[in-house]
Amino acid sequence: MLKSLPPTMSVHSKLYEGKAKILYTTDNPEVLLADFKDDATAFNAQKRGSILDKGRINCIISSQLFKKLEANGIKTHFIDSPAPHQMRVKAVKILPLEVVVRNIAAGSLSQQTGLPVGTVLKQPMVEFYYKNDQLGDPLLTSDRLLLMELATAEQVDIIKNLALQINEFLRSFWQQCGITLVDFKLEFGLDSQQQILLADEISPDTCRLWDTAETDPNRRVMDKDRFRRDLGNVEDAYQEVLQRVLQTVDSKN
Amino acid sequence: MLKSLPPTMSVHSKLYEGKAKILYTTDNPEVLLADFKDDATAFNAQKRGSILDKGRINCIISSQLFKKLEANGIKTHFIDSPAPHQMRVKAVKILPLEVVVRNIAAGSLSQQTGLPVGTVLKQPMVEFYYKNDQLGDPLLTSDRLLLMELATAEQVDIIKNLALQINEFLRSFWQQCGITLVDFKLEFGLDSQQQILLADEISPDTCRLWDTAETDPNRRVMDKDRFRRDLGNVEDAYQEVLQRVLQTVDSKN
Repeated sequence: MLKSLPPTMSVHSKLYEGKAKILYTTDNPEVLLADFKDDATAFNAQKRGSILDKGRINCIISSQLFKKLEANGIKTHFIDSPAPHQMRVKAVKILPLEVVVRNIAAGSLSQQTGLPVGTVLKQPMVEFYYKNDQLGDPLLTSDRLLLMELATAEQVDIIKNLALQINEFLRSFWQQCGITLVDFKLEFGLDSQQQILLADEISPDTCRLWDTAETDPNRRVMDKDRFRRDLGNVEDAYQEVLQRVLQTVDSKN
Repeated sequence: MLKSLPPTMSVHSKLYEGKAKILYTTDNPEVLLADFKDDATAFNAQKRGSILDKGRINCIISSQLFKKLEANGIKTHFIDSPAPHQMRVKAVKILPLEVVVRNIAAGSLSQQTGLPVGTVLKQPMVEFYYKNDQLGDPLLTSDRLLLMELATAEQVDIIKNLALQINEFLRSFWQQCGITLVDFKLEFGLDSQQQILLADEISPDTCRLWDTAETDPNRRVMDKDRFRRDLGNVEDAYQEVLQRVLQTVDSKN
């Protein structure tokens, strides 16, 4: 079931299996173990496949970024990483929102507005989508979000500010990796004290990452769009992103 | 070409043919003639048909409602109706926005939020959609609307307030007709002085209208949903709405 288990930790039962991770309960009800899978899905799971070593790569990248964000004052669900493809996280109630921060037009923003892919936005844009596979994760206006009581107006304000702060940090970090941060998706959760924590992961699965030195619109893609759009060399791109992250982290320690 | 022409007016060339109306230029560059068609389309013109007498009915209903709105201080493009299926209107530059006011959940709001059809909203909601057939009239957030420069922030505020005022008037008017106003779509245009005028039409094509006395979810429908959803008796519903509008207008004169 689990590929490896840290000797000091007893893992209980499978709590939830998502598209990219399995969550297990642990001895401590406030702690969960996330096991990152190699499974890849796109277009609301209509396209399915697998990316070799993705679980390990995404877990390492996410762990590094969560640590950096914590050091920058952003509260996350990250505790530690007992194995390369595993992360111990604080148990949170995930808000049913996909919070997308955009610096450059791409993906559904371009498709729905006609704005050409690659258009640099004058300022970063935070968008909310309803995390609901059955409904296809639809875009939310502020009014719809509040109407559906997916979060309070106060929580929305806090999340928007956090998302913009996280964007500032990530943009600069990826830039040091020679990578342009186009957009990314965040998820937030509430801990037992109703505190908002950054949750889920930050990885080539959840970020659009373009090789800054590359101008070719297909060759520059270093993220899950290689899988979505059948651009090939998916594993190479994920490995390259991992190497650049580790080099950047090492050069600063 | 035109079924009838008022003797005092010379109509020049066809300026634009939309899905439901043809616009002609007139002697006066600030005045256009709108000829209402019987053609009916739905689902971004993927479904096409025709509703007998719709052009005349929608033109009469719209003319009556525009007159009433003008009397209530709302500026519209309406000048007069030289023939039952024709309206003389002020020439405006239409803003590429579909402004939807919702009192009760239905249509795409229900489909995209999971909110059951018929859920009464605590307060009316104004939504903006990008009027663009190629892109399928996508929902706009405030940020997207401003990013695309479809209108200025000031224009958006003015339009939102106008839409809510129009809703208050229309809700009460339709109630007097024994009809519940579920939601409706408005379009606005700018005249030569950059003044915002209510344009387009207000009719069973652009409003969701439910017979207040009827509880059956199909039988109560008195609007274009009868055509969209193949509920039958489309013409009867449009005729019935017209009769009720004329009775309500007459009872007040």
